[in-house]
Amino acid sequence: MSETFPSKAAEHPRPTMIDVARRAGVGLGTVSRVVNGGHGVRDETARRVRAAIDELGFQRNEVARALRPGKKSTSLALVLGDLTNPFYASIAKASLEVAGQSGYAVVLGSVDEDPEGEKRAIQELVSRQVAGLMIVPDQGDHAFLQGAGVPVVFVDRPATGIDADIVMIDNEGGGRIAAEHLLAQGHRRIAILLAPSYYTIGRRLRGFRRAHRAAGVEVDETLVVQLPEGNAEAAEKATREVMLRADAPTAIFASTNFLAEGVLRALGVLRALGELGQEPAVVGFDDFRLADMLPTPVTVVASDTAELGRSAARLLLDRASGTDTRPPQRIVLPCALIERGSGERPPGSAADRTTG
Amino acid sequence: MSETFPSKAAEHPRPTMIDVARRAGVGLGTVSRVVNGGHGVRDETARRVRAAIDELGFQRNEVARALRPGKKSTSLALVLGDLTNPFYASIAKASLEVAGQSGYAVVLGSVDEDPEGEKRAIQELVSRQVAGLMIVPDQGDHAFLQGAGVPVVFVDRPATGIDADIVMIDNEGGGRIAAEHLLAQGHRRIAILLAPSYYTIGRRLRGFRRAHRAAGVEVDETLVVQLPEGNAEAAEKATREVMLRADAPTAIFASTNFLAEGVLRALGVLRALGELGQEPAVVGFDDFRLADMLPTPVTVVASDTAELGRSAARLLLDRASGTDTRPPQRIVLPCALIERGSGERPPGSAADRTTG
Repeated sequence: MSETFPSKAAEHPRPTMIDVARRAGVGLGTVSRVVNGGHGVRDETARRVRAAIDELGFQRNEVARALRPGKKSTSLALVLGDLTNPFYASIAKASLEVAGQSGYAVVLGSVDEDPEGEKRAIQELVSRQVAGLMIVPDQGDHAFLQGAGVPVVFVDRPATGIDADIVMIDNEGGGRIAAEHLLAQGHRRIAILLAPSYYTIGRRLRGFRRAHRAAGVEVDETLVVQLPEGNAEAAEKATREVMLRADAPTAIFASTNFLAEGVLRALGVLRALGELGQEPAVVGFDDFRLADMLPTPVTVVASDTAELGRSAARLLLDRASGTDTRPPQRIVLPCALIERGSGERPPGSAADRTTG
Repeated sequence: MSETFPSKAAEHPRPTMIDVARRAGVGLGTVSRVVNGGHGVRDETARRVRAAIDELGFQRNEVARALRPGKKSTSLALVLGDLTNPFYASIAKASLEVAGQSGYAVVLGSVDEDPEGEKRAIQELVSRQVAGLMIVPDQGDHAFLQGAGVPVVFVDRPATGIDADIVMIDNEGGGRIAAEHLLAQGHRRIAILLAPSYYTIGRRLRGFRRAHRAAGVEVDETLVVQLPEGNAEAAEKATREVMLRADAPTAIFASTNFLAEGVLRALGVLRALGELGQEPAVVGFDDFRLADMLPTPVTVVASDTAELGRSAARLLLDRASGTDTRPPQRIVLPCALIERGSGERPPGSAADRTTG
C-alpha cells in the first residue's frame, strides 16, 4: 500500500495520527511515545516519526494534545435509555452532530431503565475522564455525581440530589393542550394512560388536570390509569379493560409514543371482534414514524426531540470549555398539537367498520 | 454529602474512581497521579488517596489500569449511519449491550452516508486509541485502515481495500425469497426499487434476478428502478411514476424499509385520487415498527438486526483480546419472509376503496 500513500495524503486535507504512523512505518503507540518525550523509542525510529510529522505539516503540539493522555479530554458521555426508542435515538443523533462539529467524540452508555445499571454506567464513564456528561436520568438519587468534577447536563428530566443544567420539554403544557383539545370537542370522560412514575409523566398528568379544572370538568379518577410498565403491551391491556367497561371513556390520552401504539392495537382488536361500542378519540404524546399512515392518522402532542439533544450538547460544550459559568440553567422547549384525525373524533362516534 | 458516604459505599458493591476521589476529598486527576507514581502530589494528599483506595477494598493495579493512560484500552468504536434509522439503532443497541457486559464502553461515530465524513470519523476514533472498530462502511476505499493497528469488524457490508472480518445478512437470499414469493402468486411484472449503489442492494437485486431466472420469467429492465437517493421521498416519486404507466407493474419490491414507506405513501395518494387502477402487491426489505398496523399490513423480508450488532461486538472483543486469531471471518445471518397481507395480493387486484 505504501506506494499509493502520497496521493492518498493529498486527498484529505487534515492528516491524522494514523497517517503519521503509516508514513513512519510504526504503530500509533510509538507515535504517542515520541511526541510525549521519546522514552523507550530508538533514536532512528523517533527521527522517522518526527520527519513524518513535519512532512505531513502537522503542528507538533496538535499531535501531542491528541495523544497525551489525561489531558483535556475531547469526549462527551451520553447516558440514555433504549436506543431503539426513536425518542432516544433522535437525542443521540442530534447531540452527536453538535459534539462532532466541535471535534468531540461521544461515548455512549445505554441503560434500560434500571437505576443501578445507570449509576454503574455513569461512574464507568466518569472514570474514563470525559469532558462532560449528558444524562437522561432514571429515577433515583444522582447526588453521587456531585463529587465527580465534570459538568453534567440532564436531558428530558431533572435529577434529584444535584443542582445541574437541565434541558427539557414543556410536559405540563403538553398535557394541558392534549386535554384542552379533547375537552373542546365535547369529551367529558377522558382516560389518561400513565407510564410508571417518571417526572415527565407526572407533569403531563398535572397539565391534564389543569385543563379539566379550567373547563370546569371533574376528572374521573377511575380513568386515570397507572400502568405497571411503560410498554405497548401494558397500554394494550389497560385499553381493553377500560373500553369494555359499561362507562367506557369517549377519549384516550396516551402519555407516550409506545403507549399510543398499545392503545391503537387494543382498539384494532376490539373493533375486529365487534366489541367496540363507540370509537374513542385518541391523542398521543411524542410523534412517531408512520403515525400519519395508520388507518386513522394519529393526533399527537409533539416536541422537537432533536433540539433537546442539540441544546444539551451545546450547553455541555460551553460548560466543559468554561465559556459558560452561569448558575445551573433550565431550558424548556415548547410542545405543539399535530391534528391528524384520531384526536378529532367527537364523543359517541360509531365504531369504524374497517379493521385496523 | 460526605456524612452519607459510608452507607452509599455499602450500597453498590463495585466502588469506582469517583468513590476514591470523594473519599479522599480530591479530584480524579489527583487520584490518577497518585496511582501513576505520585508526581506533583503532596505527600499528605497521596496518603489520603492511598488510604481511600485501601478502605474501599480496591486492588491498586485495578485503579492503575483504569487510569493509566495509553494502556489496554477498554473502548470500542462504532461507526454507522443515521441513528434514527431503526436498522442502525438496533445494531448500536445490541453491540453496546455486548460490549458493556465485558466492561467495554462504546464510542460512537455517526456519519450520514458521506465517505469523507466517515473517513475523518474513523481516523478520529483510531487516534483515541480504541481497542477495536465496528464499522458499517460507506462506499469508498477502506485501505487506509490497513495501517491503523487495531482490529476492525465490518457490519452489514464488506469494505474494499482491506481484508477484515465481516458480519452481514444473506442479502442475495433475501432478494430471492421476496421475488419467489411474488412469482409464486402469479406476478410477472414486478418492479424493484433500488437505493443508491450499496453492496447490499446489489446483492438483493441479484437474488431478485436469480428467482426470475429460476422461474423462467424475464425481468423487465424498465421496472428495475435505480433511485437517486435512498429515502422515502425518492421511492414515493418513483412509485407514482411507475404506477401511472400504461404497463404498470402488478407488484413492487422495495429494497429497504424507508423505500417501503415511500411506496405505501405513493399508493395511498394515488388511491385517494382514484388514479390507482389496480392494487399492486408490496414486499419490503427489513421489518419496521407498525408495519403490521398499516391499512394493509406489510409483508417484509426480515433479518435479526440485533444479532448483527451482537455478533460483530463479540467477534471484535475476541479479536481485541487476542483470543481469536483466525483469518478474517465472514458471518452471514439468514433472512426470512414475514407474510402480513400486502405481499399476498394476486395480480389484477382491484384498488382498495379506503384511503390510507
